[in-house]
Amino acid sequence: MAAEKVYRASTTAPVNIAVVKYWGKRDAKLNLPTNSSLSVTLSQSDLRTLTTASCSASYPASEGDSLILNGEAADVAGARTQACFRELRARRAALEAADPSLPKLSVLPVRLVSENNFPTAAGLASSAAGFAALVRAIADLYELPASPSELSLIARQGSGSACRSLFGGYVAWRMGDAADGSDSLADQVAEASHWPEMRAVVLVVSAAKKGVSSTSGMQQTVATSGLFQERITNVVPRNMEAMEKAIKERDFAAFAEVTMRDSNSFHATCADTYPPIFYMNDVSRAAIRAVEAINTAAGRTVAAYTFDAGPNAVIYYLEKETEAVVGTLYRTLGEIDGWKAVTTQSLNSSVSLDEGIAGILKAGVSRVIMTGVGEGPIKTEEYLVAEDGSPVKR
Amino acid sequence: MAAEKVYRASTTAPVNIAVVKYWGKRDAKLNLPTNSSLSVTLSQSDLRTLTTASCSASYPASEGDSLILNGEAADVAGARTQACFRELRARRAALEAADPSLPKLSVLPVRLVSENNFPTAAGLASSAAGFAALVRAIADLYELPASPSELSLIARQGSGSACRSLFGGYVAWRMGDAADGSDSLADQVAEASHWPEMRAVVLVVSAAKKGVSSTSGMQQTVATSGLFQERITNVVPRNMEAMEKAIKERDFAAFAEVTMRDSNSFHATCADTYPPIFYMNDVSRAAIRAVEAINTAAGRTVAAYTFDAGPNAVIYYLEKETEAVVGTLYRTLGEIDGWKAVTTQSLNSSVSLDEGIAGILKAGVSRVIMTGVGEGPIKTEEYLVAEDGSPVKR
Repeated sequence: MAAEKVYRASTTAPVNIAVVKYWGKRDAKLNLPTNSSLSVTLSQSDLRTLTTASCSASYPASEGDSLILNGEAADVAGARTQACFRELRARRAALEAADPSLPKLSVLPVRLVSENNFPTAAGLASSAAGFAALVRAIADLYELPASPSELSLIARQGSGSACRSLFGGYVAWRMGDAADGSDSLADQVAEASHWPEMRAVVLVVSAAKKGVSSTSGMQQTVATSGLFQERITNVVPRNMEAMEKAIKERDFAAFAEVTMRDSNSFHATCADTYPPIFYMNDVSRAAIRAVEAINTAAGRTVAAYTFDAGPNAVIYYLEKETEAVVGTLYRTLGEIDGWKAVTTQSLNSSVSLDEGIAGILKAGVSRVIMTGVGEGPIKTEEYLVAEDGSPVKR
Repeated sequence: MAAEKVYRASTTAPVNIAVVKYWGKRDAKLNLPTNSSLSVTLSQSDLRTLTTASCSASYPASEGDSLILNGEAADVAGARTQACFRELRARRAALEAADPSLPKLSVLPVRLVSENNFPTAAGLASSAAGFAALVRAIADLYELPASPSELSLIARQGSGSACRSLFGGYVAWRMGDAADGSDSLADQVAEASHWPEMRAVVLVVSAAKKGVSSTSGMQQTVATSGLFQERITNVVPRNMEAMEKAIKERDFAAFAEVTMRDSNSFHATCADTYPPIFYMNDVSRAAIRAVEAINTAAGRTVAAYTFDAGPNAVIYYLEKETEAVVGTLYRTLGEIDGWKAVTTQSLNSSVSLDEGIAGILKAGVSRVIMTGVGEGPIKTEEYLVAEDGSPVKR
């Protein structure tokens, strides 16, 4: 075959966990939300997607665009993925039209290979990192002069929360009000370096079975919850304002209260959906009681829980409170996987949880993930597509 | 001792289970609610309190008012109970002032003996039946010419939901707006005979431990839930109107939907409380899924769940749907106590529940109570205080 050049670009992208939740679409096709949201980007050394985008005239046109995810062929025909390809190609085509010397990459099939460094079993929303990496990698492949906010507009169409994974640190997704979604994008509230002490421990809870998908769940909530309008009209705007202030002032107690209240409010609107949607289970609720016990013992707020569309508990805390927070959880869950060095001191200073709560956690938490605030997508020379265009075996 | 006459009056009073929930006080002292509520009075052959009120000049004044509940001396010093005594005595005193020939009962100590015909362990709100019986029995002892609605004003001060147990059938508690609570009382939406086919099966769920008391829980919700105002301002008024219409028209599908939506909305505001309040557990949620499965299998709404401030599921259905509803529950929970005759036909026509749901119910439901809509308080000649004033041993 012709030794056509294989163009490649590789990037990693992070997971983000919202502290003011996205729940509800005002436009399902464009993924336009009913409310703004705000998240913390988590460190890619613990949780990240690595994606290599490549294209070449040597790729048979018949093959079309393709994606290999965690070693298996994945579907790219979905409207969400297609929208991302379309938007990125259009921007590349515009560059090529303006500068005829550029190679015509926009007409070539794109071959994507992607890997997560965390078990999908963890039930952590990997779509955010996945679409952020896909969009960032193709934008790099196409050498688009697009800012992270511009790319967030594209990633948003792949998976709403993906738009927040184009940035590191503390990230807001502004809902916007334009019908075409042109102002519904992410911006950075603060760099990770502004408040680098933020840590998170994830209690992975084995769910009996996957609940309602968030895509259909949020639409059912919008359509049937009598309390939902109050959340998006008054509760979330208040929480967004208070959260941005808490982050700017590095006020953990305020950050924690808004985080816990917003998680409660989000799951309340799920429970008010008809029929009701329940993502949290008795193990999730035991995790809430554990956080309350940790804060009570400390005499101040040192830990904050939040739950996405599943039973896993994400617990935020500051590095200096590792002993009070991680020590207490380790004391109960020390036998499961995922712990990083826990000092004896932390065990001494830890709280002993109520037996009932400890028992429920022991029985229901399958592993922990310890991480913290981190950076946005990072360009890398590590390629999952070889120079000849073949997927790298590993 | 002097053979002074012992005056006695005995009554039974029913339990009621709300289909539009009371949650929130605008005045804690007077038990004035933040919203109206509506309940179904349950049959006293299954669930009732029997109370005998007595008074006599032979009772030592030093003894004061007393209450023996289920064989044990109970406290009557509480402000709630004292308010009921005060209100009833004032009305008796007015009668005595107007007619000097009447015996001066208002100055005598009251001796009350009370019994429930259901296990307190069942965790069913017995305070409603208890205060309704107490007020009704003393009113009869004093021969007050008061209507059930007038007495509901008094019972309300003992326990809010008790005001609804002064009536049988379908009962509304109108929140009223007077500061002194004079218009916050119960009235009957429909007699039991208007829609006598209403049945209820209670799945008694053994809770790990008693959650937040409803009295303190509802005040925490009023104070901290960002969604609560929407519930009392818009959701409940809509539900009250729709529920009264459904009852008047004997429209079970409408009755069921409002019942389930209002239970969801109430528990949603509990989950939105800070810190969150959870009365339902995984067993309660499995009961919801079971009801949904029963309705799906029937192709129409034949069952409706509702949950009070605890994990027990109360499932309403119409007598003609016993096979579809009770048959299915019996098929899963047949080994526990409380079933009334279940026909083989009902077992044949029953639905087989998802294994996960069936397993959770089997492990978590300790007994069932089968009952239905019933009458209000009934005067009886069965006395728990003997003619000589001594408590009847049984």
